[in-house]
Amino acid sequence: MDFAYNARTEEYRESLLDFMDTHVYPNELRYERELAAAGDAYVTPAVVEELKTEARSRGLWNLFLPDEEWGAGLSNLEYAPLAEISGRSPFIAPDAINCAAPDTGNMELLAGFASPELQRRFLVPLLEGEIRSCFSMTEPDTASSDATNIDTRIERRGDVYRIQGRKWWSHGALSDRCRVAILLGVTDPDGDRHRRHSMIVVPLDAPGVRIERTTTVFGYVDHAHGGHAVIHYDDVEVPVGHLLGEEGGGFAIAQARLGPGRIHHCMRLIGMAERAFDHMCARAHEREPFGRPLAEQGVVREWIAEARIRIEQARLLVLKTAWLMDTVGNKGAQVEISAIKVAVPEMAAWVIDRAIQTFGGAGVSDDTPLAALWTQARLLRIADGPDEVHKMSLAKRELQRYAPLD
Amino acid sequence: MDFAYNARTEEYRESLLDFMDTHVYPNELRYERELAAAGDAYVTPAVVEELKTEARSRGLWNLFLPDEEWGAGLSNLEYAPLAEISGRSPFIAPDAINCAAPDTGNMELLAGFASPELQRRFLVPLLEGEIRSCFSMTEPDTASSDATNIDTRIERRGDVYRIQGRKWWSHGALSDRCRVAILLGVTDPDGDRHRRHSMIVVPLDAPGVRIERTTTVFGYVDHAHGGHAVIHYDDVEVPVGHLLGEEGGGFAIAQARLGPGRIHHCMRLIGMAERAFDHMCARAHEREPFGRPLAEQGVVREWIAEARIRIEQARLLVLKTAWLMDTVGNKGAQVEISAIKVAVPEMAAWVIDRAIQTFGGAGVSDDTPLAALWTQARLLRIADGPDEVHKMSLAKRELQRYAPLD
Amino acid sequence: MDFAYNARTEEYRESLLDFMDTHVYPNELRYERELAAAGDAYVTPAVVEELKTEARSRGLWNLFLPDEEWGAGLSNLEYAPLAEISGRSPFIAPDAINCAAPDTGNMELLAGFASPELQRRFLVPLLEGEIRSCFSMTEPDTASSDATNIDTRIERRGDVYRIQGRKWWSHGALSDRCRVAILLGVTDPDGDRHRRHSMIVVPLDAPGVRIERTTTVFGYVDHAHGGHAVIHYDDVEVPVGHLLGEEGGGFAIAQARLGPGRIHHCMRLIGMAERAFDHMCARAHEREPFGRPLAEQGVVREWIAEARIRIEQARLLVLKTAWLMDTVGNKGAQVEISAIKVAVPEMAAWVIDRAIQTFGGAGVSDDTPLAALWTQARLLRIADGPDEVHKMSLAKRELQRYAPLD
Amino acid sequence: MDFAYNARTEEYRESLLDFMDTHVYPNELRYERELAAAGDAYVTPAVVEELKTEARSRGLWNLFLPDEEWGAGLSNLEYAPLAEISGRSPFIAPDAINCAAPDTGNMELLAGFASPELQRRFLVPLLEGEIRSCFSMTEPDTASSDATNIDTRIERRGDVYRIQGRKWWSHGALSDRCRVAILLGVTDPDGDRHRRHSMIVVPLDAPGVRIERTTTVFGYVDHAHGGHAVIHYDDVEVPVGHLLGEEGGGFAIAQARLGPGRIHHCMRLIGMAERAFDHMCARAHEREPFGRPLAEQGVVREWIAEARIRIEQARLLVLKTAWLMDTVGNKGAQVEISAIKVAVPEMAAWVIDRAIQTFGGAGVSDDTPLAALWTQARLLRIADGPDEVHKMSLAKRELQRYAPLD
Repeated sequence: MDFAYNARTEEYRESLLDFMDTHVYPNELRYERELAAAGDAYVTPAVVEELKTEARSRGLWNLFLPDEEWGAGLSNLEYAPLAEISGRSPFIAPDAINCAAPDTGNMELLAGFASPELQRRFLVPLLEGEIRSCFSMTEPDTASSDATNIDTRIERRGDVYRIQGRKWWSHGALSDRCRVAILLGVTDPDGDRHRRHSMIVVPLDAPGVRIERTTTVFGYVDHAHGGHAVIHYDDVEVPVGHLLGEEGGGFAIAQARLGPGRIHHCMRLIGMAERAFDHMCARAHEREPFGRPLAEQGVVREWIAEARIRIEQARLLVLKTAWLMDTVGNKGAQVEISAIKVAVPEMAAWVIDRAIQTFGGAGVSDDTPLAALWTQARLLRIADGPDEVHKMSLAKRELQRYAPLD
Repeated sequence: MDFAYNARTEEYRESLLDFMDTHVYPNELRYERELAAAGDAYVTPAVVEELKTEARSRGLWNLFLPDEEWGAGLSNLEYAPLAEISGRSPFIAPDAINCAAPDTGNMELLAGFASPELQRRFLVPLLEGEIRSCFSMTEPDTASSDATNIDTRIERRGDVYRIQGRKWWSHGALSDRCRVAILLGVTDPDGDRHRRHSMIVVPLDAPGVRIERTTTVFGYVDHAHGGHAVIHYDDVEVPVGHLLGEEGGGFAIAQARLGPGRIHHCMRLIGMAERAFDHMCARAHEREPFGRPLAEQGVVREWIAEARIRIEQARLLVLKTAWLMDTVGNKGAQVEISAIKVAVPEMAAWVIDRAIQTFGGAGVSDDTPLAALWTQARLLRIADGPDEVHKMSLAKRELQRYAPLD
Repeated sequence: MDFAYNARTEEYRESLLDFMDTHVYPNELRYERELAAAGDAYVTPAVVEELKTEARSRGLWNLFLPDEEWGAGLSNLEYAPLAEISGRSPFIAPDAINCAAPDTGNMELLAGFASPELQRRFLVPLLEGEIRSCFSMTEPDTASSDATNIDTRIERRGDVYRIQGRKWWSHGALSDRCRVAILLGVTDPDGDRHRRHSMIVVPLDAPGVRIERTTTVFGYVDHAHGGHAVIHYDDVEVPVGHLLGEEGGGFAIAQARLGPGRIHHCMRLIGMAERAFDHMCARAHEREPFGRPLAEQGVVREWIAEARIRIEQARLLVLKTAWLMDTVGNKGAQVEISAIKVAVPEMAAWVIDRAIQTFGGAGVSDDTPLAALWTQARLLRIADGPDEVHKMSLAKRELQRYAPLD
Repeated sequence: MDFAYNARTEEYRESLLDFMDTHVYPNELRYERELAAAGDAYVTPAVVEELKTEARSRGLWNLFLPDEEWGAGLSNLEYAPLAEISGRSPFIAPDAINCAAPDTGNMELLAGFASPELQRRFLVPLLEGEIRSCFSMTEPDTASSDATNIDTRIERRGDVYRIQGRKWWSHGALSDRCRVAILLGVTDPDGDRHRRHSMIVVPLDAPGVRIERTTTVFGYVDHAHGGHAVIHYDDVEVPVGHLLGEEGGGFAIAQARLGPGRIHHCMRLIGMAERAFDHMCARAHEREPFGRPLAEQGVVREWIAEARIRIEQARLLVLKTAWLMDTVGNKGAQVEISAIKVAVPEMAAWVIDRAIQTFGGAGVSDDTPLAALWTQARLLRIADGPDEVHKMSLAKRELQRYAPLD
């Protein structure tokens, strides 16, 4: 277990920290204003494009992608502290360095499983930050916490696959830059439970694709993510070459995608918790109800101590998980991936909630970023598998070690 | 401690339950649709006016007002179960029976402290449900959890008071039906700390009143409440007769207003928790991830048991508080009012959060009412005094009983 | 729901409160000393006999027994506040007023189901406070949280029943005054799951009864209870007339016994929590680490506020449960009995734990009663059915109300 | 941050794990029996001496002592996993490898600050495992969580120091092997607050030393620790050479002693939590109430998952703290030492409590080690500084980073 930052990580960290200080934080207000002025939550404000140019010129680009050919070639442990930093300004920074979900996962899939033709058409512009993408897995009418329940149909008809189904929580689809979806559906309804599904690339302008709306998250439309779309796929046809990997391999690919996706979310959440911690401590010095600053009041100090303790523990568990993924692979790190998926959103929600409380009315409103940050943490107790599913699978694995011999 | 429903309460309960079943619940969807169609969150949908007519024809009107001349003349204990029922559909029902915040508190003030002229002009149309009102107390730049900090100025200039200040969290001001504000400000800056403030009635169309915007609550604009407005009062002049009570009496009046206001919120929150409980139990039977209904899974059962235990305890404490207010007065019930103000929002937030979790993605979105309900509960851990202030004052009072004799 | 104390309750309360102030509290130290001097945890100190005489002379005797012929004839609601008061000094007061577990439950059984002969032999001396009794139900080798698992055999052999089995957690057996056990065993192994068991009276001096030891509770031998004995019943023979009720009725009788037993425990636990609260508040005024009394430190105030809020809620739920048992019967109050069985020990453990923390080292030691009180609360999260069993049964009952119609 | 076990650690780990498997666990029962047979809780059972011989022959001896001359010369990071393993059998293993508190801290002090004469007389036999020692700091009549409150007097009278005071929680004094105390007292009552105290070595057979009794810990006398003694020091005289370090240096030395002491406790607590986890998982497979093993019940699985998540996080934080102490010193690691002092006992108490619950009655009794383990964890929320003091100091330090510039 060596979590030390190596020279490469240190270099990236310094560069990214400087970028945050000089370009990201100073532009958060401008971002809000441009967004408000646009009158459309899903338009990309001009400031984002400027930030992307700046970030790229500094080499802060596609850091998430372990593939050295297409991306920065960083290990999970190397990327972890960088993702955390980007999470401190989660509505701008990940996008600015082209490391925003759900594009990161989609780029991984395209880099690993798409034909050269598809890579040219979608992966390259994604890596260039020219377009964005969405991921269509969950369905409104099935218990998708068990992914084998999914029942959108993908039927082969000669040279094309015909897709029929309705998805929701298709993260990213509403962004004005979104051009393509990666979709999970059933190619072999009678196949083995884990061999029924395939994953396929669907251009959003294909006939039959219709975006109905976003679902909200505690009142937010999650603009930075590009929303969480309800999408109808009505007899959409795509060439057979759009399949990722092989027929029946969808479930395995989805599992592979979720491991890194989950840890990336956790990394960024730690950054959000740190940002909330900053706000809480600054506020504690500034606010003086009843004649004494909050910073001198026992209950607030208790929150601050608890917050620091929780953040540190969560960060170490994420680093250990990253290190494990790098050394024994995603499969070998399953207990830990489940563990952070449960622990980190809970920790972040708790820390942000306490920060909100120190701000009173400003905390629940958009006059601070805290309320929006909290919803991100709360959503992740459900998204990518609810807490309860991860706990059950973790417990099962632990219990196996104690199973009586027959 | 007799919490039994008397005959009058029973009669009202039956009538209100029937009204909910036959008119409110069946119209919730229509309400959502009319609101969406209006394209303005603060327009009152037509369905609300219909419901008001129906409710009034059934005698379900102004139930909150203990004043027999102006209102239903119910005691707190009699009103409690009715407010709870209205809380089950909190965006429609309280308005439909003309028992919505912040109008209830404002009507109490006008009934108790306004001149006949003001009562004719504002109280009567409020009691008729023709207009709505807002309450302007909190200020963005001061720690308003200590109400003595408030510093909006109310200066006497001959026959008028001139008002200068900026308020926020002025609940209700954005409703298309809102016509009048009740404002707390400083009339005597050098007076005793609890005698500096006065309360005054300000028509919203008075020159110098400018509503800037609403603050949001976790992404919601709180349409049913009429938003939480930021209001500028720039040299607004109102006749001296607009003062409520006497000069310097503002703090005392504010305190008097907050007691009933707090318990009403708690009563409705219990209704919200019960509604969430209904949703959770129904969902538990319906959803079957991993081949077994949630209703048979231990963790969900634990939530349901915990939820029932918490709701019951909270309800009993609210009933005891109502009974105390009726028998020994609001002052004698201060410990209990603080206690429910802390306990009930926390309970409701917990129950609703567990219900959200059973719904997964649907729970955090507006496809169920749960996310919006949760924000109401969360807001009330801050509004009308944050938890911490209530706990400190409660503890102080308890500790007094044990103070060593000198 | 009328929880008001009636005249009779008020009279008893005043008398009992005076008895506590003048006789119980002043003798707690003497009790500890006599116990220590005896060198045997299960000897009854002389002070207890004196207190019994005094209590009885004041009519504070057998208050728990609703049967008017044998006992005070109080309803559950009338007894609740009295049991709470006795719980404030739980190692002396319940015994002093002849209302200590497990005798109370045993006396109820003997009053309801025993032959006149058995009543003469055991019930009368129990009611007189001359002897004590124990209850033998749980077994070490079976999961007794499901009472149908019990497998001690009770076999009819002509005019006698022969008993073979091993029991533990037989509360009370080690007291020097203990003379008799009530035992649950299997009379019909092939019978219906709920008709297999019978309950029988076993004199402790019967050949074959052997008390092995007490189990401890966090290091305590629970002297006031008379310990929790492991008892061997090796071919013990008792006359057939020793059966309580009818053959096969044991499970039903046990259930009947547990309802009142559970609420009595809860009532006393509230008294223990109040006692801990007293200690905590007094300590908060007295102790001044870092130059300021604990009473002025935010975290301690938060504990005090939380403690008061929790105690109040728990007490109200117990009162409601008592009232329900009185009005609709123990069966109709099952949800509430489970609810208090879960909520009250948890509340009491929490309050006592916070009191311990304010005392530091003295809190965990026997220099205050807090550590011992805490173990009583913790034990009750397991005894008479662990929390989890009560929650599951409560949830099942709640879920039934929402079951879909087929 | 490199937490990897190096070759030396790995070698020790293997050796220690083997020793635990082959000698410690198999002798736990014998230990209990010998202790019971002795009829004196503070006699050292013969098995312990045998284990010591065996351990020493394997080089498993004085591992805690970083001083290479006197001890094994391991860094904190190297010792951490070994201390954790010894914590799995905390009543035997630490003693068997001569790494038991409070001797470890005392040996550190003697190695660092005692005269060669004192080292010969006390340090050598301690290192040899021939005698044990106690630590006398806390006082019953002062708020010792603030160590500057201590007021036992140490007065110079020519060639001797005369000591007058009363201490409690003097860990270890009752062991039949205990020969010496290290005591903190006031040498300069008028000195600066942090320069008033000195530390001194007191042979237990010095005239005037009187051990009154042990305080209990939830009913336990803490035999393995040698109890927590109340000690009277009545005009005890020791040669001036018995002072550790310089006059006035006591507070600084105490602080230095507490850093390692605290992390050692935390390391062992993680071992205790792991042991409880083992018990819980084994029990979950074995017990089948209501016809299904606990291992298949959702609530128990949730506990197991939560326990694993909490243990992992706590362990990582302890490792990080050890690494920091090794690299930047105890002072630089103060935030982290406070953090683990708060987080680890809480975690351990939680895990053990859940294990207790899976065992029901056996869990709270001494039929499993769980109840005793729990009291160790609970005690450590108070001992060596209560949680609240550590949280306040941690928060203060964090808040400094955000202090506004004047």
